[in-house]
Amino acid sequence: MSDTSGTGVTTRRQGRRPGTNTSRQLVLDAARTRFSSDGYSGTTIRKIAGDAGVDPSLVMQFFGSKEKLFASVMSIDPSVLETMTQSFDGPLESIGERVARAFVKVWDTDRTESEPFLAMLRAAISNEHGEAQLREFIQARLIHATGARLGNQPDAALRVGLASSMLIGIVVGRRIVKVPALVQEDPETLIALVGPAIQALFTR
Amino acid sequence: MSDTSGTGVTTRRQGRRPGTNTSRQLVLDAARTRFSSDGYSGTTIRKIAGDAGVDPSLVMQFFGSKEKLFASVMSIDPSVLETMTQSFDGPLESIGERVARAFVKVWDTDRTESEPFLAMLRAAISNEHGEAQLREFIQARLIHATGARLGNQPDAALRVGLASSMLIGIVVGRRIVKVPALVQEDPETLIALVGPAIQALFTR
Repeated sequence: MSDTSGTGVTTRRQGRRPGTNTSRQLVLDAARTRFSSDGYSGTTIRKIAGDAGVDPSLVMQFFGSKEKLFASVMSIDPSVLETMTQSFDGPLESIGERVARAFVKVWDTDRTESEPFLAMLRAAISNEHGEAQLREFIQARLIHATGARLGNQPDAALRVGLASSMLIGIVVGRRIVKVPALVQEDPETLIALVGPAIQALFTR
Repeated sequence: MSDTSGTGVTTRRQGRRPGTNTSRQLVLDAARTRFSSDGYSGTTIRKIAGDAGVDPSLVMQFFGSKEKLFASVMSIDPSVLETMTQSFDGPLESIGERVARAFVKVWDTDRTESEPFLAMLRAAISNEHGEAQLREFIQARLIHATGARLGNQPDAALRVGLASSMLIGIVVGRRIVKVPALVQEDPETLIALVGPAIQALFTR
């Protein structure tokens, strides 16, 4: 955290030059795309800098390390998280369709929203850095947030964890592994099939 | 494929020295463990050779490249595949419990059986090499093999693909991301919850 390089980077933060915020955003956007396409291991600071059109040393000045840059990228839009978390709210008899729709919406409808999620997923499965991120996401944000709301359900946290894992499995099949049978289906067909499965997890 | 190194490796195949099969097996075992723990990207020929107690050049002689070694490791025990594929056979009214149990058995009961599967899963999600492997596995072995048996079901292939993806999602949550709520549950509790969800995919 302290400025040991002698370049005065830390103090410069208080008096940023014009254009710094733009460069920072360009780097973040490039990193998001790279982590999403190449995974954590396959992404380098050099590649990201090249994509963003800046010098690699500037990326290091902004973020300090590949790991820290990754953590910044992983700050998924809170409204996306809210969409997924809130979908567990509401009448229990329609929870399956609601949750399936919310997850499908995040990864299918809006590519800008789903890219950081895919990046986290790839990274989570390929290395320890991302595992902790995804574990924290599922356990703290999804399970705890929703477990409290479904408090009168037995094993609420476990059911939410299973539902999330199963829906993430479909993301893996459709967007990452690209199983043909899943890729070619439209979202509504998937929701119609998956909704009742998720429903059965909660109200069989 | 041809021997361009001038070491006579190709011709040596016809007349193997004693002990070669053992070394080859040691390398395969070491590779399986490494790919499983470090993923495809994080694994090197050098690390595998070190684990197996052989020279890296011997690993290259046996397998030619990291990619080819990976392909050899990925040849999952056919009986394991058979367990998963056959679980879709039988009365439709108990398909959910049967399939959930078969998948849980593969990844929970026997670590020797589940390690190559985990390796494939990690590799599939972190890079293109493994994606093709897992795509081929799900599409050809699971979906086609079982789709034929469930021919009288509408969307049989799609339902099998969704069921497999959802169960693989639970493997990811339990064995790779290690979500605490999932890790701490015993297999029978998981089967009791997941079985009806898979069942609903086929007979809602």
